[in-house]
Amino acid sequence: MKYFILFCLCALGAPVYSAPVASELVVEPPSWWVGMKSSQLQLLLRGADFEGAKVSVSAYSGVTLDKFTVLENNRYATIDLQIEPLAQAGTLNLMVHLANGERQSIAYSLAARTRDSASRRGFSARDVVYLINPDRFANGDASNDSVVSLSEQANPTKPDGRHGGDLQGIIDQLDYLADLGVTQLWLTPALENNQPNYSYHGYAITDFYQIDARMGDNQLYRQLSQQAKQKGVGLIMDMVLNHSGSEHWWLKNPPTKDWINFGGTFSGTSHARQTIQDPYASKADKKQFSDGWFVPTMPDLNQRQPILATYLIQNALWWIEFADLSGIRVDTYSYSDKQFLAKWTERIMDEYPAFNIVGEEWTTNTATAAYWQAGKINHDGYVSGLPSVMDFSLQQAVVSGLNESESWNTGLIKIYQSLANDFLYADPNKVLVFADNHDMSRVLTELGNDIAKTKMALGLLLTTRGIPQLYYATEVLAHNNGSDAHGVIRVDFPGGFDYQLANGFTGQGLQPDQQAMQDWLKKLLNYRKQQPLFATGQLMHFSPEQGVYVYFRYSESDAVMVVLNKNSEDRAVSLERFSERLKGFNGYNMPLKSSSKQRLGDKLQVPAQSLTLYELSQ
Amino acid sequence: MKYFILFCLCALGAPVYSAPVASELVVEPPSWWVGMKSSQLQLLLRGADFEGAKVSVSAYSGVTLDKFTVLENNRYATIDLQIEPLAQAGTLNLMVHLANGERQSIAYSLAARTRDSASRRGFSARDVVYLINPDRFANGDASNDSVVSLSEQANPTKPDGRHGGDLQGIIDQLDYLADLGVTQLWLTPALENNQPNYSYHGYAITDFYQIDARMGDNQLYRQLSQQAKQKGVGLIMDMVLNHSGSEHWWLKNPPTKDWINFGGTFSGTSHARQTIQDPYASKADKKQFSDGWFVPTMPDLNQRQPILATYLIQNALWWIEFADLSGIRVDTYSYSDKQFLAKWTERIMDEYPAFNIVGEEWTTNTATAAYWQAGKINHDGYVSGLPSVMDFSLQQAVVSGLNESESWNTGLIKIYQSLANDFLYADPNKVLVFADNHDMSRVLTELGNDIAKTKMALGLLLTTRGIPQLYYATEVLAHNNGSDAHGVIRVDFPGGFDYQLANGFTGQGLQPDQQAMQDWLKKLLNYRKQQPLFATGQLMHFSPEQGVYVYFRYSESDAVMVVLNKNSEDRAVSLERFSERLKGFNGYNMPLKSSSKQRLGDKLQVPAQSLTLYELSQ
Repeated sequence: MKYFILFCLCALGAPVYSAPVASELVVEPPSWWVGMKSSQLQLLLRGADFEGAKVSVSAYSGVTLDKFTVLENNRYATIDLQIEPLAQAGTLNLMVHLANGERQSIAYSLAARTRDSASRRGFSARDVVYLINPDRFANGDASNDSVVSLSEQANPTKPDGRHGGDLQGIIDQLDYLADLGVTQLWLTPALENNQPNYSYHGYAITDFYQIDARMGDNQLYRQLSQQAKQKGVGLIMDMVLNHSGSEHWWLKNPPTKDWINFGGTFSGTSHARQTIQDPYASKADKKQFSDGWFVPTMPDLNQRQPILATYLIQNALWWIEFADLSGIRVDTYSYSDKQFLAKWTERIMDEYPAFNIVGEEWTTNTATAAYWQAGKINHDGYVSGLPSVMDFSLQQAVVSGLNESESWNTGLIKIYQSLANDFLYADPNKVLVFADNHDMSRVLTELGNDIAKTKMALGLLLTTRGIPQLYYATEVLAHNNGSDAHGVIRVDFPGGFDYQLANGFTGQGLQPDQQAMQDWLKKLLNYRKQQPLFATGQLMHFSPEQGVYVYFRYSESDAVMVVLNKNSEDRAVSLERFSERLKGFNGYNMPLKSSSKQRLGDKLQVPAQSLTLYELSQ
Repeated sequence: MKYFILFCLCALGAPVYSAPVASELVVEPPSWWVGMKSSQLQLLLRGADFEGAKVSVSAYSGVTLDKFTVLENNRYATIDLQIEPLAQAGTLNLMVHLANGERQSIAYSLAARTRDSASRRGFSARDVVYLINPDRFANGDASNDSVVSLSEQANPTKPDGRHGGDLQGIIDQLDYLADLGVTQLWLTPALENNQPNYSYHGYAITDFYQIDARMGDNQLYRQLSQQAKQKGVGLIMDMVLNHSGSEHWWLKNPPTKDWINFGGTFSGTSHARQTIQDPYASKADKKQFSDGWFVPTMPDLNQRQPILATYLIQNALWWIEFADLSGIRVDTYSYSDKQFLAKWTERIMDEYPAFNIVGEEWTTNTATAAYWQAGKINHDGYVSGLPSVMDFSLQQAVVSGLNESESWNTGLIKIYQSLANDFLYADPNKVLVFADNHDMSRVLTELGNDIAKTKMALGLLLTTRGIPQLYYATEVLAHNNGSDAHGVIRVDFPGGFDYQLANGFTGQGLQPDQQAMQDWLKKLLNYRKQQPLFATGQLMHFSPEQGVYVYFRYSESDAVMVVLNKNSEDRAVSLERFSERLKGFNGYNMPLKSSSKQRLGDKLQVPAQSLTLYELSQ
């Protein structure tokens, strides 16, 4: 790389820029903030030949130009700035003097942060996260279903096509969502995916700073966040660090030769995530996992490239500030360079110590997942800053636990065993729990269309430890019977699209079963919201016996007893075995049924095929 | 408990004991040694009413009587002695003065330890452990097949009966075993099991200080150890801490009320070993696992009882000294009280720092097994002294890996994944690896009677990290086709019993397949013995590809490449992927085939359905 550094220019008086300018430069991040904990900012410039260029900066109290660097590919340059704590909000004027005599002025906004930005509280076990594929939830603006500047056009009849769902559709349903009782929205990526086809899922990002025009725009995304927040609902952004879309501008003309792994040529990942922890793994296997590409349309980013690493870090900070996020979900977490991940999470958590980030590490091996959680003391000294991981082990255990018949090592014992492994986690209450998500069969389908089992699964995941996540349309019994294709799993929410007769948002035309599930979930979610034991209570569980699994969420003074009875008949459950948790209580009410208090006897009559809550009282 | 302490008596001159004595007392341990690291010794006395008794001791330089204690049940008493480092070997004369005026003299032997006893080296990855059910290996002494004093008589035709195998049978075959290349013998318990039936397995011990008379006696056990040692073969004793046989003397009249768990009444264990690590486990569940009994005929010992705990600790030390053991295998390890286990292992390892003990923790969850290994930093601060655990995860993975067809998550990848979890172990090279043992189906049966697969399984386990263990008669293709009953799995070794025509020891009458397996194993074991890389070499493995799994055992200067080709055809394996381990080598020989050196090219032609070793050279 060639470094042309112009120190001290920034110390000169601000010149008046009046010379003719060349074609417009693109600067990223497109803006920044004063008052960030880190004073460093690196701008990436493109849109000109920077060979021999120089940069000057207007006088701006507290802001200094550190370095101007032309990259290996001279169509790119970086400007390193220092923004001291005392700097006030305003516009920083930069002038790029190209070697051909042209000048480019950049009016760079340094905004004030919103109050309490740094102390924002991330999503937690207090919350229920609702996962939405924005293309499949609600079409709030038919005018943006297809957009001339973006290659793939709407095709709602194709499972893998774009169906027209958008941010306006979500904004329109914020009352519905808040009423249902969810408190966080995780949208799969809404950033531009200007790929010729199969772009609706959002994971082939072609612009990390721009909402896809078929979804809305950056302002609308911010509006969604603001309006949701007013209703007590946070916004979690789904970020992709591992790869971009193959139509991303940096593929056409990479800033450096090492920007894309495997020299920019497709070589598939092995998905062998265990190579990261494996004491016997070869370098070759580690590289194939980390540097290998997901698919040819998603080139794998080399986060060891320091400019790219900074780009990705700043991108995350930018969206948190810009859109007032309450969290980040990171796609294909472990596939990125692990030292970069440590730095990326550290930088974010340093700026926002109470924030939350959940990484997708798709493994049922808790030891592997736990490796990535912040606070874990790892065998190899690796220090991760990631507060939350996803509990695929419990997801699988819940499905197996309910589908399998009971024996010493099948059925509910799997749930018990999965949770017993929590000693591996640094903080199991920060783990994301879910019955399904956008990459797996719908839980109703997994459970053989058994609604009672589905309620048991959801009920358990909403009352055990961790941060529960629901997948959209679960409340109206969405399924993918007959196909596990992603495009089928990611079904159009009923009521979100013109062609549909039933409407899950209004309840119009829903089947009684759908209405009943929606009502039940609403009741449970709203009870959960006001019962702090689910957020911060301890967990104690008892080994399943005869198809009955009992656990408690409790504090020093309060307790909720949860009884899952998988059997097809009611059970009289003897309470003696649970005395260490029942001691001191003599009554209970059943919060999802009635508030009337009943006396605690020797047994509880527990209904068949159900999960029942008992709020204990003295 | 009532304590009658007679300090200072030991300081008096040695009296001449001539008074009439009562019925004989039993003292355990029956003898002890001077020069042990710990100076404490607690004798347990039985055989009289000790209420009001007193004890005196002859003058013995360096030995003092600390305490005489009559137990809750006055048919038992303990004598606590201090044996200082300077004490010389000799006979300590103790006199028990009973309240009825009777006297009992005890001539207690304090022997000298064998040279280097304290620094004895336990079994390790240098070794191959050969597991024998002594009742089923060889009947060397027909005269002890049935013994009048022991209730169960020989019945060789019954799978669960006693077949007559004994220690003499093993002694007779020491040449065979040494020649085969095994270096350690693990015998399932040979201690007295005076149970009315189903006693051949040895795990229902009725005398912790006495070899079962149908096996031989204590002297013969020591002789076996000595003779084996002369042939380079160590002896590992199988110890049971968790329970005794229901016919044990202490069941009839327990020394204290808390000697047996659950008040001496059967309540089955839950086998829920995860309760030990589970952060959410109830006390009730922990108790049911640890204190619950295996079966009604094996009462569960309460190791929290301090006299019992000391009894078990001293019993282990006694056998190590008496029989010159090279290791201990502990049955149902985690079922005992965990604080006791910590103390028991600590005491033994403190006396013999280079010793080895392997605990049976039957779980395929490596995190659970790893919890028990010495050196593991545990979440709950538990410090274990157990050097070795058994790798049930790898056992299952090897069977699945060879039986399943290959896919991204089935077949050989399971072996790779199991080993990748080794980051959980404090010391994976001290883990015991095995294809089967006395509690599970024979590996040949598990692998569908496929001899090639069996050789691959054994070959892998004998060349990967850890301490390999072979189950007796594997070398002559023992199987349990058609039944997984333990009595069938524990087949009579051909040649060990009169009724058999074929003889695995001499080779006479063996089928060619059996002979071939025996020859192959012998070659591999004897090669293993002289190749230090299998004992101390590093391991590096490569993700299986197309049914071929490649790994290296290596040091800075040497390497053995192991290639397992599961396919039904030969494969030309490209070597480029392994360059990080092949660098610096340009030749190889195939130690199990010939010593001729060949040049290392770009590819290796690897035979179908086989595991091949390549010893690399420069």
